[in-house]
Amino acid sequence: MTSQQTGSDDLELIEQNDGFTLTWQQRLILRHTAQAPCLWAGAGEADIAMFRGNFSIKDKLNEKIALTNASVTKQRTGWTIHFTRGDAVSATLIIDTDAAGRLQLRLQNEASSHNRIWLRLAAQPEDHIYGCGEQFSCFDLRGKPFPLWTSEQGVGRNKQSYVTWLADCKENAGGDYYWTFFPQPTFVSTQKYYCHVDNSCYMNFDFSAPEFHELAFWEDNATLRFECAQTYVALLEKLTNLLGRQPELPDWVYDGVTLGIQGGTEVCQQKLETMRNGGVKVNGIWAQDWSGIRMTSFGKRVMWNWKWNGELYPQLAERIQQWNREGVQFLSYINPYVASDRDLCAEAAKRGYLTKDAQGKDYHVEFGEFYAGVIDLTNPEAYDWYKGVIKQNLIALGCGGWMADFGEYLPTDTFLHNGVSAEIMHNAWPALWAKCNYEALEETGKLGEVLFFMRAGYTGSQKHSLMMWAGDQNVDWSLDDGLASVVPAALSLAMSGHGLHHSDIGGYTTLFDMKRSKELLLRWCDFSAFTPMMRTHEGNRPGDNWQFDSDAQTIAHFARMTTVFTTLKPYIKQAVAQNAKSGLPVMRPLFLHYENDPRAYTIKYQYLFGRDLLVAPVYEEGRRDWTLYLPQDSWVNLWTGEECGGGEITVNAPLGQPPVFYRAQSEWASLFNALRLI
Amino acid sequence: MTSQQTGSDDLELIEQNDGFTLTWQQRLILRHTAQAPCLWAGAGEADIAMFRGNFSIKDKLNEKIALTNASVTKQRTGWTIHFTRGDAVSATLIIDTDAAGRLQLRLQNEASSHNRIWLRLAAQPEDHIYGCGEQFSCFDLRGKPFPLWTSEQGVGRNKQSYVTWLADCKENAGGDYYWTFFPQPTFVSTQKYYCHVDNSCYMNFDFSAPEFHELAFWEDNATLRFECAQTYVALLEKLTNLLGRQPELPDWVYDGVTLGIQGGTEVCQQKLETMRNGGVKVNGIWAQDWSGIRMTSFGKRVMWNWKWNGELYPQLAERIQQWNREGVQFLSYINPYVASDRDLCAEAAKRGYLTKDAQGKDYHVEFGEFYAGVIDLTNPEAYDWYKGVIKQNLIALGCGGWMADFGEYLPTDTFLHNGVSAEIMHNAWPALWAKCNYEALEETGKLGEVLFFMRAGYTGSQKHSLMMWAGDQNVDWSLDDGLASVVPAALSLAMSGHGLHHSDIGGYTTLFDMKRSKELLLRWCDFSAFTPMMRTHEGNRPGDNWQFDSDAQTIAHFARMTTVFTTLKPYIKQAVAQNAKSGLPVMRPLFLHYENDPRAYTIKYQYLFGRDLLVAPVYEEGRRDWTLYLPQDSWVNLWTGEECGGGEITVNAPLGQPPVFYRAQSEWASLFNALRLI
Repeated sequence: MTSQQTGSDDLELIEQNDGFTLTWQQRLILRHTAQAPCLWAGAGEADIAMFRGNFSIKDKLNEKIALTNASVTKQRTGWTIHFTRGDAVSATLIIDTDAAGRLQLRLQNEASSHNRIWLRLAAQPEDHIYGCGEQFSCFDLRGKPFPLWTSEQGVGRNKQSYVTWLADCKENAGGDYYWTFFPQPTFVSTQKYYCHVDNSCYMNFDFSAPEFHELAFWEDNATLRFECAQTYVALLEKLTNLLGRQPELPDWVYDGVTLGIQGGTEVCQQKLETMRNGGVKVNGIWAQDWSGIRMTSFGKRVMWNWKWNGELYPQLAERIQQWNREGVQFLSYINPYVASDRDLCAEAAKRGYLTKDAQGKDYHVEFGEFYAGVIDLTNPEAYDWYKGVIKQNLIALGCGGWMADFGEYLPTDTFLHNGVSAEIMHNAWPALWAKCNYEALEETGKLGEVLFFMRAGYTGSQKHSLMMWAGDQNVDWSLDDGLASVVPAALSLAMSGHGLHHSDIGGYTTLFDMKRSKELLLRWCDFSAFTPMMRTHEGNRPGDNWQFDSDAQTIAHFARMTTVFTTLKPYIKQAVAQNAKSGLPVMRPLFLHYENDPRAYTIKYQYLFGRDLLVAPVYEEGRRDWTLYLPQDSWVNLWTGEECGGGEITVNAPLGQPPVFYRAQSEWASLFNALRLI
Repeated sequence: MTSQQTGSDDLELIEQNDGFTLTWQQRLILRHTAQAPCLWAGAGEADIAMFRGNFSIKDKLNEKIALTNASVTKQRTGWTIHFTRGDAVSATLIIDTDAAGRLQLRLQNEASSHNRIWLRLAAQPEDHIYGCGEQFSCFDLRGKPFPLWTSEQGVGRNKQSYVTWLADCKENAGGDYYWTFFPQPTFVSTQKYYCHVDNSCYMNFDFSAPEFHELAFWEDNATLRFECAQTYVALLEKLTNLLGRQPELPDWVYDGVTLGIQGGTEVCQQKLETMRNGGVKVNGIWAQDWSGIRMTSFGKRVMWNWKWNGELYPQLAERIQQWNREGVQFLSYINPYVASDRDLCAEAAKRGYLTKDAQGKDYHVEFGEFYAGVIDLTNPEAYDWYKGVIKQNLIALGCGGWMADFGEYLPTDTFLHNGVSAEIMHNAWPALWAKCNYEALEETGKLGEVLFFMRAGYTGSQKHSLMMWAGDQNVDWSLDDGLASVVPAALSLAMSGHGLHHSDIGGYTTLFDMKRSKELLLRWCDFSAFTPMMRTHEGNRPGDNWQFDSDAQTIAHFARMTTVFTTLKPYIKQAVAQNAKSGLPVMRPLFLHYENDPRAYTIKYQYLFGRDLLVAPVYEEGRRDWTLYLPQDSWVNLWTGEECGGGEITVNAPLGQPPVFYRAQSEWASLFNALRLI
């Protein structure tokens, strides 16, 4: 056995007879022998079909070749490893550190026909893994593969559920545990390192083997970055140094609930008054149909022509000003598509700003009885033009914000201005869409004043998406797609560097026999009071759902919980500021502050809200008590003032008193105590 | 370009710059270039989980390497082709003809670690493909992959059906289009050749590409055989020369229906009398619970201890003799497992005749609240002992036959006497099980007198399984798992060399909300009168199902259709004799005799019964007419005597008059005409 040790103190590469090991700050990163190699090269042909954001993705695998031989060459700042399989196949791995001192692994296939890479990172059987963007079904990702591809999140997301089966039969829409609007090739290991991949190709991170993580890349190159830290808090600070952080939220966000309303200016006015008269703190009205509607056989759809529709919303400009004077924002809606039969699309087409099909004609995507063109955000002129649409049609109108919807639907067979394959750009699209919105605010000086929120994301959304929302939950109690699923979604995003998350109060997807019950709406309202934003949604079939104004008790419930939320304003605000400053997320997994508690690593449906509140939302129907786990600390029940230490505890959990504890030694204790009087 | 042509007139290998083509009797078989190779080598680790005959099969693929370089060496009788990928990987293909003059391709990986082979056979876009054993959902196999692995057939077999989803949720039991008891690596192309593979490993024959068929083998070697013929009839004769043929059926089979009855001697006697009194021709009683029952929470199960149970069946030996005198056979039941808690198992265990687990202990399979040992049929002593059980306990008792059930459940983690991996032996098991039954008859001189019938099969079942039955259809009208599915099952088996097929009248699987309706039972009875055997089954929940004696009209229906069947005896008998002589199946696809009719190749739910009857079973509920296709010929409606030529025709199809036509020029016309008087 020969042994070689080089590089900085942090980085150690030891050569052995038929392989090597790479260690970074005492973490074993790579382990290669001829018998158990760490690298494969190969080729495949992607077979990707999309129907309304639901993807069927298969690889017609042409070959996958283990690169058994590794020849190491010392370089000035690291090593180059030439991997081969006889004289037939080769690939290169460059190991060094980037300008910021991160470990950097750069892989490159050498055969031009090879467009697939599989890399095995060393793992320990006991490692837990978190991140990979927004994961709704899993928090600890160990034990499963996670394909990373932005798409609809699926309806039901569990092949054992009837709703999933119905949705699958209808449009392949049921989804599975890994479907997400916001995937990201970034994970945190409990060895206290993160790994982030720069690419945007289709990837599959498979954490199911005990001794390795197999990362598959549908591209001929990949760049991985790693950093280690002593604590998870420090690790997230490093990760967000790399990826960027969200700025603080506009102050009005903390002043109440944003009411999702449709139907025109007067409907908004009436519902606003009803709620305010009922004592509800309202910070805004969010009207997604501000641009008008289109009738289809599925019902009303928003008109995808992003300008104020004066017929449905008469006097909107004036009314916005009036509402603003009353402390109420008006939020609208936009997405990166333009309806093919309307004037914005015609203008984009005339200017050549739409993505193309194989014949060079404008590509139009079917969205359900109507088509829409795709703004080519890789074309700087198109990007600027669309940014101008946001500035002129939304910001100048006086919108306090909007939902920047979609971003997941870039078809893989469309052609882009930048010449990059749409298969590679697909995942990058949501972040590009975020950046377009972000810059519209930045360039108009409205950052920190106007808010947009998104469901789709990818690397880059940390910096450019001001706020995430959890997308389209079912209006049900299912673990994989109901209220519960929002918690692992927020926590996995937190571990991926995005620290601001909220959800539609009451959920959205109202299909088949699902109808939102009163209890679900109230429990979701309770939960949302302990997230950085409260916002309601009518759902896609408003008439089937219990709504915020469906009865007096519900209005009173919103009055109570918005008062809780607004009372917490200074506390939430400082947590949001901390996120902006150091990337410490607002909703945090328990292990972030209780690193030595093994059970904290397995908890998926509880979270810390800031440093001092522990929240355990009730996500089952008909419950009036709730059992939760408290890490070792001194805790106070937010509603009863009872003190307790760590361990499992069962508490009363009536509606309006979601299980929440605060740390006894919190500097915010008097604020928290005030909540008992509400 | 260099060109080389060698071998017999039939076999032509032409070398080109970077590849070769292989042609056999003017059919292009292989086409290889460096860019589009025909061979891949690789390695994988099978990940196979079984629960009650339902398999989850995945390949942990370690590598798959295109062998781009082919170096051809002329041999005395053919060629050896050395395939390589640089100096790293190689495999050999030996091309020659076997002793019988068949084209033989022998593949062998050269790396000991390589246990996977992928071979692409040249194809034309317009080719149709048939065979691959018993296929219930597809007849023309073009357009899909067909994994070949003997298993349960699935409940529902269609991911779009509710029953399938329920069964999947329960025990991964829903299945898919390719699940079958009887897979076989044999197919017939409309280029009029067959291809048969000698191996028994897991394979996947993928017919979805227009230019090639990709055959995947989970083994380090494969031997393929090909023959061509001028007609499909001649081709099946050649195929059955290779695989073997079924002998003729016992004469009693044509004398009526075999009644599936359970519950004891007197129940059998009473039901027999009821049916005979109602004018039903009965050729036998089939009592699967002859060995007793076991109560489980699922209900009654047969006691898997293969000996006459005198408590449930008192005086059976004497009664069998009496029934025989009345022309009624007694049929029993056996399978290749022995209940762990009973004496046959104890004896097998003592003798060391059970398969083993990794620790060398007896392997016991869970069958639903009881366990059973697996008789190790690869141990000649165990095989002979079990053959002796059949001889002594079934044949000597006087059984006229039995259901030789199962054969699909060999676990892949059990260890066998012959030292071959259970993964390789799994598919071979049903044929070994058939052979054991066959030899028990052969050695007692009972072939042609006693009948056994099987659902499981593989290569070898042609010679050793006297009769197939279609296994466990649902008691419903579904295309993939109901009455209809029996027709493609029979026809695909026919194209795989097995020409004797029947089904449970009324279907079997009675789960969830499924219950057998009277109409379904009667339609199935109508259909079965035009198959080589009529046999009923109560189903797994007899109380939920309409039965043959449920009302007088049903009994009268059986009286009518058994009279039709027995009237056809001489015709069916000659068709069965033809199958025994030349491998011409009894139930035939239309194109077998109408080769020039393109539409004949697409017809999946009609068949020729012998040469002269065309049968189009009614497989939809509530129908009283039926539309079918007649190839160009002179046809006579069996029930009305109306004559017609070819083309689509709609006929009345009342219960008891299934759409059947005979050829006007048939020598059996007077026999057929006699059916109009029944």
